[in-house]
Amino acid sequence: MALAPYDHFRFVLVRTSHSGNIGSAARAIRTMGFDRLTLVAPSRFPDPEATALAAGADDVLGNAVVVDDLVGGLAGTTFALGLSARRRGVNLPELDPREGAAQAIAAARRGEQVALVFGNERTGLENDELSRCHAMVRIPSVDDFSSLNLSQAVQVVAYEIRSALLADAAEPVAAVEAEVDPDEVPADAEQVERFFTHLGETLDDIEFHKGRSPTTIMLKLRKLFLRARPELRELRILHGILADAQRMAGMAKKRD
Amino acid sequence: MALAPYDHFRFVLVRTSHSGNIGSAARAIRTMGFDRLTLVAPSRFPDPEATALAAGADDVLGNAVVVDDLVGGLAGTTFALGLSARRRGVNLPELDPREGAAQAIAAARRGEQVALVFGNERTGLENDELSRCHAMVRIPSVDDFSSLNLSQAVQVVAYEIRSALLADAAEPVAAVEAEVDPDEVPADAEQVERFFTHLGETLDDIEFHKGRSPTTIMLKLRKLFLRARPELRELRILHGILADAQRMAGMAKKRD
Repeated sequence: MALAPYDHFRFVLVRTSHSGNIGSAARAIRTMGFDRLTLVAPSRFPDPEATALAAGADDVLGNAVVVDDLVGGLAGTTFALGLSARRRGVNLPELDPREGAAQAIAAARRGEQVALVFGNERTGLENDELSRCHAMVRIPSVDDFSSLNLSQAVQVVAYEIRSALLADAAEPVAAVEAEVDPDEVPADAEQVERFFTHLGETLDDIEFHKGRSPTTIMLKLRKLFLRARPELRELRILHGILADAQRMAGMAKKRD
Repeated sequence: MALAPYDHFRFVLVRTSHSGNIGSAARAIRTMGFDRLTLVAPSRFPDPEATALAAGADDVLGNAVVVDDLVGGLAGTTFALGLSARRRGVNLPELDPREGAAQAIAAARRGEQVALVFGNERTGLENDELSRCHAMVRIPSVDDFSSLNLSQAVQVVAYEIRSALLADAAEPVAAVEAEVDPDEVPADAEQVERFFTHLGETLDDIEFHKGRSPTTIMLKLRKLFLRARPELRELRILHGILADAQRMAGMAKKRD
């Protein structure tokens, strides 16, 4: 990609009715690293409601491109994905957001400009608008309540593309071992054993067993603490607690 | 899973300021097949703004459970994921939404109830709220504009869990339900909370703190025990140990 990866993606909102959704969409794409927004025949723009809901993504709104129709909205792009909540009569490949993100990134990697196209809140994309797209993306909503809020759909798509870009970026990098604090790694077997010994002695001191089998109880406690994989500094706290319980038991017994 | 898969998940919104976000979140989870919403100390609920933005997800709002604090919000759950926009001082495993969804589904498959916990719009989850969660989920937003709208975050998490459930269902594996002994599943949040309360009281009784901050120590112990995900019968043993330590402390003090 010649441009920065995120600059290959444009979010295109078509005939949006509610200005608030434009603002929420601007915020949504901004959180995911994108900033290119195209508005096709919005009901109102600019609008204070959009600005309020952008919650600071003013740069996205300020640089938004406003055009009359989707042909204008797609100018300069070579790959377009159209969002649709319903299965349509349109004969287009239907992708889920993850597959859509993968194809969008593949196109961007070839240097292409990619459009993610979202229709009107109530009516979605018209068939002639979908027919300008290379594939349809359907967010897998439930059949009896299928309609996501517009900006929620934008968020999901932006999130999927960002996740895939991050995974891409993470791959070729050699795994660098972070510096670890020895206190923050699980304690070794000897240290854990020392804790179990101390725990067993304490249970005797506080007269916990009372006829129950010490072995069975210790096996159960062992299982519990091994599952937690305690760190050394956590063991230190536990030793401190046991020591205090033992001290109390000692004082209690002097009394007898 | 004994229940339908989606019934194992509960979305918990903590101290939500804007009623509209409650409505948008209800719509978001409903589109993804979920319907269990818990509201912890919402600013206002019910509220016409919530109803308007739910856009027909009235059943979700109507069945929403309203509670005073997160302990109540987690009642009956055994696995909780807390959403956080920022990396925190809290030392919890940090997952991305996909990893979080995988862990949540694994818990649901074991028959557990799972909570997805979302904090206040401006302040997020408090550290003591995060400390009641087993892991933190961070949606991978950009550093310079990291804050998603609350309902957008809900949408992304619900979408990831649904996508994973759909992928699971597509697999030809017959999910065999093992008979589970209620003693052998992780204790629920209330039971664990009761243990932490008892542990805190015991530390006071045995005079453990000695100038150290009880809060810091309790957070560390909380983290250790949450990691172990104790079973109910294990908690019973621990309660027994604490009770004996308290008894010794009581006897020791009578002596003074």
